[in-house]
Amino acid sequence: MANSDPRCFGFSARAARTAKQPISYLMTQAVNNPDVISLAAGFVDTPTLPDAEAAGLLADLLGGAQGSKLPLQYGTTEGNAELRTLLLEHLARLDGVDPAEIHASADDIVVTTGSQQLLFMLTDVLVDPGDIVLTSWPSYFVYAGALQTFGAEVRCVDMDDEGVVPAALEALLGQLAAEGRLPRVKLLYLCDYHQNPTGISLSAQRRPALLDIIRRYSTHHRILIIEDAAYRELTYEGRPAPSLRRYDTENRFVALVQTFSKPFAPGIKTGYGLLPRGLAEAVVLQKGNHDFGSANLCQHVVLAAMKHGVYARHVQELRRRYAAKRDAMLAALDEHLGDFAPGHTRWTRPSGGLYIWLTLPAELDTGPDSPLFQKALDNGVLYVPGAYCFPDDPTRTAPTNTMRLSYGMPPIGEIQEGIVRLAAAIRDQADAGDARIACVTRGCLRTVAIPLRTVPDDAEPPNPGSHRATRS
Amino acid sequence: MANSDPRCFGFSARAARTAKQPISYLMTQAVNNPDVISLAAGFVDTPTLPDAEAAGLLADLLGGAQGSKLPLQYGTTEGNAELRTLLLEHLARLDGVDPAEIHASADDIVVTTGSQQLLFMLTDVLVDPGDIVLTSWPSYFVYAGALQTFGAEVRCVDMDDEGVVPAALEALLGQLAAEGRLPRVKLLYLCDYHQNPTGISLSAQRRPALLDIIRRYSTHHRILIIEDAAYRELTYEGRPAPSLRRYDTENRFVALVQTFSKPFAPGIKTGYGLLPRGLAEAVVLQKGNHDFGSANLCQHVVLAAMKHGVYARHVQELRRRYAAKRDAMLAALDEHLGDFAPGHTRWTRPSGGLYIWLTLPAELDTGPDSPLFQKALDNGVLYVPGAYCFPDDPTRTAPTNTMRLSYGMPPIGEIQEGIVRLAAAIRDQADAGDARIACVTRGCLRTVAIPLRTVPDDAEPPNPGSHRATRS
Repeated sequence: MANSDPRCFGFSARAARTAKQPISYLMTQAVNNPDVISLAAGFVDTPTLPDAEAAGLLADLLGGAQGSKLPLQYGTTEGNAELRTLLLEHLARLDGVDPAEIHASADDIVVTTGSQQLLFMLTDVLVDPGDIVLTSWPSYFVYAGALQTFGAEVRCVDMDDEGVVPAALEALLGQLAAEGRLPRVKLLYLCDYHQNPTGISLSAQRRPALLDIIRRYSTHHRILIIEDAAYRELTYEGRPAPSLRRYDTENRFVALVQTFSKPFAPGIKTGYGLLPRGLAEAVVLQKGNHDFGSANLCQHVVLAAMKHGVYARHVQELRRRYAAKRDAMLAALDEHLGDFAPGHTRWTRPSGGLYIWLTLPAELDTGPDSPLFQKALDNGVLYVPGAYCFPDDPTRTAPTNTMRLSYGMPPIGEIQEGIVRLAAAIRDQADAGDARIACVTRGCLRTVAIPLRTVPDDAEPPNPGSHRATRS
Repeated sequence: MANSDPRCFGFSARAARTAKQPISYLMTQAVNNPDVISLAAGFVDTPTLPDAEAAGLLADLLGGAQGSKLPLQYGTTEGNAELRTLLLEHLARLDGVDPAEIHASADDIVVTTGSQQLLFMLTDVLVDPGDIVLTSWPSYFVYAGALQTFGAEVRCVDMDDEGVVPAALEALLGQLAAEGRLPRVKLLYLCDYHQNPTGISLSAQRRPALLDIIRRYSTHHRILIIEDAAYRELTYEGRPAPSLRRYDTENRFVALVQTFSKPFAPGIKTGYGLLPRGLAEAVVLQKGNHDFGSANLCQHVVLAAMKHGVYARHVQELRRRYAAKRDAMLAALDEHLGDFAPGHTRWTRPSGGLYIWLTLPAELDTGPDSPLFQKALDNGVLYVPGAYCFPDDPTRTAPTNTMRLSYGMPPIGEIQEGIVRLAAAIRDQADAGDARIACVTRGCLRTVAIPLRTVPDDAEPPNPGSHRATRS
């Protein structure tokens, strides 16, 4: 509650709960070390940004024969109506269904300032301090920061190579039910395509299972699934699984959230979501307080990009470019860390998105205050310490031996050089560490079982038919 | 708190407190009555929107020889650094001082999605449910709606032709202090230039007085003044008074909030504020949760507009255009209502902004369910019922005989025709009303004192030297 000091403002409980996002520490490091190669930033690949395309669309919108002043006028709180209609069709198309089949209308679509604003508002309309929010272990750290502000109790669900483990979700909900705490469980947040931070996608067969569990435990009220599909369209091979929303045929449990930031341009900062019937109105009322509508100019740009096929062509091109960057990072990891502590070092092989998740021997601390982090920085490479990606679940202790690597922003040459520098830092640190680590890394202790903490011991075995996303 | 119904979501207390903005009712009326002339919308004048200017700036930004992809990349949470530096200089220039004199730096500037988002976030970091927010009577209704969401207790301060009355503010704070409730008073919100909804500006001589009162009552914590100066640059004659911020020489009590929406283009949705030292960090932390930065593309457009003189030229042109529209509305009011219930009907004569506030005889109900509102709609004209503009102060009853008229959007011909239709509706309703109103409107009851409720009986007399903003 408010302080009592005439020198200070009387900050709200919400402000008091808001901590600095850990990523700001990394951004400071990047600014202070300009020659560093950042494998940390979640920025997109600058050379691929559609400047000529956007310039052409804007010239037509504002200055051409079909020009109009409307993109410069106020829009509506929920977003441009024509855009919302196209987005509904787009989401249906991604799931291979007819818009008429999905029990939704353009009124269930809300356009926001990036998808983050929609994640925030969905949480704001559902979560009071002390309410419980479920998410994966690990999870997207910006959203985890927001949950602190809301005063939510975060409870995490284990993941394996197929994403969140249904049995683990069921066990957690069963336990909360037994404790009489189900009325406090408001939502489950999942980044289910090429997850930030791991790159892991939720397998197709688990999707109906998760939805069924949430439906069965919605005895006190409906528990919402926020399906953060920010990276869905950046799938580089194979056909991505249907959305969780696709299985929610009555449009009751899943808010499907997407964005133009990753597949088009973050500077246009336009996100959107398809919400269960009855939820859009509550979100739009909040948005009326926040800003009564995101930038209309940006909405007109993405609307024009969709109408004229510019968006579809750009996504195609991005897939090609990012696939090559992912391949470069994986090849560099294979080359420079392939023989490092075999059995104790592994990384994911994502089929899309921007991230690879690296797990080192348990004794190798990757944290922001660790010697390894400093050594990497000295070598000229920055990564996201994995500890940032484990939400503050009161029942868990975060692993300290993981990191998120992004191939989004750096060009291929820097990706390769960045991995060279990182591998050197890791080997140096392992050699400088205690004898046991050194021993492990030299292969003399190969039989010592160091648990790979992102894969719980009791996880169900991966389906033999599924794509193995992780190198073991 | 959350409901218990498996068919519903478990909405938060905050969602439960969020009501539909009254303006949405008016927007529905406008949509359902497409031939209506809207004197209600706060939209800006579409023909003045800088389409050619924006197209030129965007072509240079994205496609020209100096082109860059950076406007399409992520920006920072607090906003573009170069833009914030220019904004600090701009604000200093508006107050006729050197940036070095104002005890502030670009770090105290935050760029947001319109100024509304900054109003929201400033309130979010200070106000817990049950805290007290002070504002004028009447006040800006969108912000009043947000205060309901925050669960704030709103207490209002009387206004007269010079804006908020210092003695009334002092009396209210004295009373709250006597009740031991000063620790709950978090902020004072004022729209102090050409106020929305009245068009009244806070006089220069009252500015230091208000600041002094807030400073003296900041005994428990600092009470923040939110100075919403959205219409400041739209001053059509005379030099606007210095900002409240100008008198806060140590940068401790005033958050000066402005926007590019009114003086440039709402579709670019870019607002900003100069905040007291220590407050920007708290707001930026919240913004990290909300959206981690407003649309970078839009920020680059306004940055370029400022750098190349496009903004300054556009504001000059807008002033000329809006002054003519204001004059047209005032002339039409003089012509068509000048002889209506003299002494009981009055309207403001703003020196800027977009709004005129009309006060009718106390018995003429202007509310959304009133016969007058319906008659006006039947005649083809829409206004904002003044009742929407009186916040929900538990100690007050809102007047029912006022309305806000905007000359922002309609062209001059429609402004004139709109006033003809409105005046006809008012005269019809007066004639159809009870004998006493009819009597008053025909002038036979001129001696009956009908209080003009927006001017409190105990208000101090206007300073003889001040500009009389109101026709009496």
